[in-house]
Amino acid sequence: MRPFGPFVGIRDMMVMHSLIDIVGINDISRSVFDNASAAIIGMAKNYKPMEIRGKKNVALTALGTVQKAINFICPQLIRAGYQPIIFHASGVGGRIMEDFIGRGTFCGVIDLSPNELTDHITGGFHNAGPNRLEAAGKAGIPQIIIPGCVDFFAWGPEATIPEKWRTRQRYYHNPAYTLIRPTHAEMKQIGEAFVRKLNAAKGPVRVILPLKGMSIGGLKGGTTYDPEGDRILFETIKTGVNKNIPVFEMDFHVNEEPLANKAVEEFFKLRGDPKA
Amino acid sequence: MRPFGPFVGIRDMMVMHSLIDIVGINDISRSVFDNASAAIIGMAKNYKPMEIRGKKNVALTALGTVQKAINFICPQLIRAGYQPIIFHASGVGGRIMEDFIGRGTFCGVIDLSPNELTDHITGGFHNAGPNRLEAAGKAGIPQIIIPGCVDFFAWGPEATIPEKWRTRQRYYHNPAYTLIRPTHAEMKQIGEAFVRKLNAAKGPVRVILPLKGMSIGGLKGGTTYDPEGDRILFETIKTGVNKNIPVFEMDFHVNEEPLANKAVEEFFKLRGDPKA
Repeated sequence: MRPFGPFVGIRDMMVMHSLIDIVGINDISRSVFDNASAAIIGMAKNYKPMEIRGKKNVALTALGTVQKAINFICPQLIRAGYQPIIFHASGVGGRIMEDFIGRGTFCGVIDLSPNELTDHITGGFHNAGPNRLEAAGKAGIPQIIIPGCVDFFAWGPEATIPEKWRTRQRYYHNPAYTLIRPTHAEMKQIGEAFVRKLNAAKGPVRVILPLKGMSIGGLKGGTTYDPEGDRILFETIKTGVNKNIPVFEMDFHVNEEPLANKAVEEFFKLRGDPKA
Repeated sequence: MRPFGPFVGIRDMMVMHSLIDIVGINDISRSVFDNASAAIIGMAKNYKPMEIRGKKNVALTALGTVQKAINFICPQLIRAGYQPIIFHASGVGGRIMEDFIGRGTFCGVIDLSPNELTDHITGGFHNAGPNRLEAAGKAGIPQIIIPGCVDFFAWGPEATIPEKWRTRQRYYHNPAYTLIRPTHAEMKQIGEAFVRKLNAAKGPVRVILPLKGMSIGGLKGGTTYDPEGDRILFETIKTGVNKNIPVFEMDFHVNEEPLANKAVEEFFKLRGDPKA
């Protein structure tokens, strides 16, 4: 039951299960080590450094709960000659994206699931550390920010949820994951984190607020629906960000087509694309 | 922060971090998939089925807290012509050992860390499911059982411990692991699990009880020292096991040489070795 993230960090590390305690060579470890050696030799023989060929790479973040938005956004980017690359905002994914941004891989970001801000504040699984949502601002590339999935943090199976969270609103994602609703105080803290990070950005930023909800469970009728918590977050962002950062309040939820289209439209505008 | 165990199960599976969400081919995924393919080709070209050559393989279970006992036991086994193979009793390791036992790999077991019985009862990390400590009994091979490490269950970093366990005695193992002391009621349940499983064994069983403690933290002066809990466990085992299962109570802790020597001596006797 060891967590996988700490082993591999933000690199494409390969990990092999040793089966046995690594104490000398025996009939079992010999076979495991033989296979591991063969894999290493295979990779070494064929090694090519990672080559970023596209110049119009766009970074996106997503989780399953905003998949529909991704489906609306990506085809439009591809038609306009962009290469969208999607990072799974699971704590590790967001950190990887920010690392690539720092290395100049991307010409812009559509950050649809900055939910790692929430998990960092609450102690959820999708914790990307304190620096999430900072690399694009430092690099000065265009950013479209939609606070998708920030209305929950991720935990494991229902049975493993600590007492302190047991009275919270929860969304059953699958047998391995439960999504838990932050408190109003936490929603305010999350909003303040957005404000602090976006105000420090050197490049252009646009914020789109999905007034009807930020995740599947967070919609009206959903198990993590809490309009007052949403309002606190939106208000904190709206009143806190610098005047040069436009905030678009849209009467849609995060997975509706007009909201996705607005994200693409604003992205094209910031890039100065003829399509815009 | 996903747990690693569920990905690899009890096989020597290789897992590679994809970096990105797996949605089509792009400049990043191309490189990751190229490396993964090269590793697969390397392994396929060199594939040999696992070959168990030794006939005198002995399975042992261990965790860091009983390393000293392992250091006393293994050289003696090797000198007598055995091949000791040590499984890390982390939940996955114990299940792997039992799987190999079921396939006839081992001529006997020195089960020094059946701590997975505890974690299954308490909900700790080292949960090997309900069938731990059963395979050797079914296979009818000799078993030496020492309840090492059953006086704690494993959890993650201090800060992640659920409220319900926060008042328990705890042992700081390292930044990633905290060991938590079971209650007296749980110690009784653990003892009952031993009794039920050992009484079902078709082969010979010897039990050695380390009266002075079962782990580093569980010794006098240690942070998980609880002699009454130990007594409840020992008493439950002693009074519960069938009359044909000798129980040796030794006035040593689990990492002392005379206790390790007793385990080896009893093992040699059960095997009918001339050394015994």
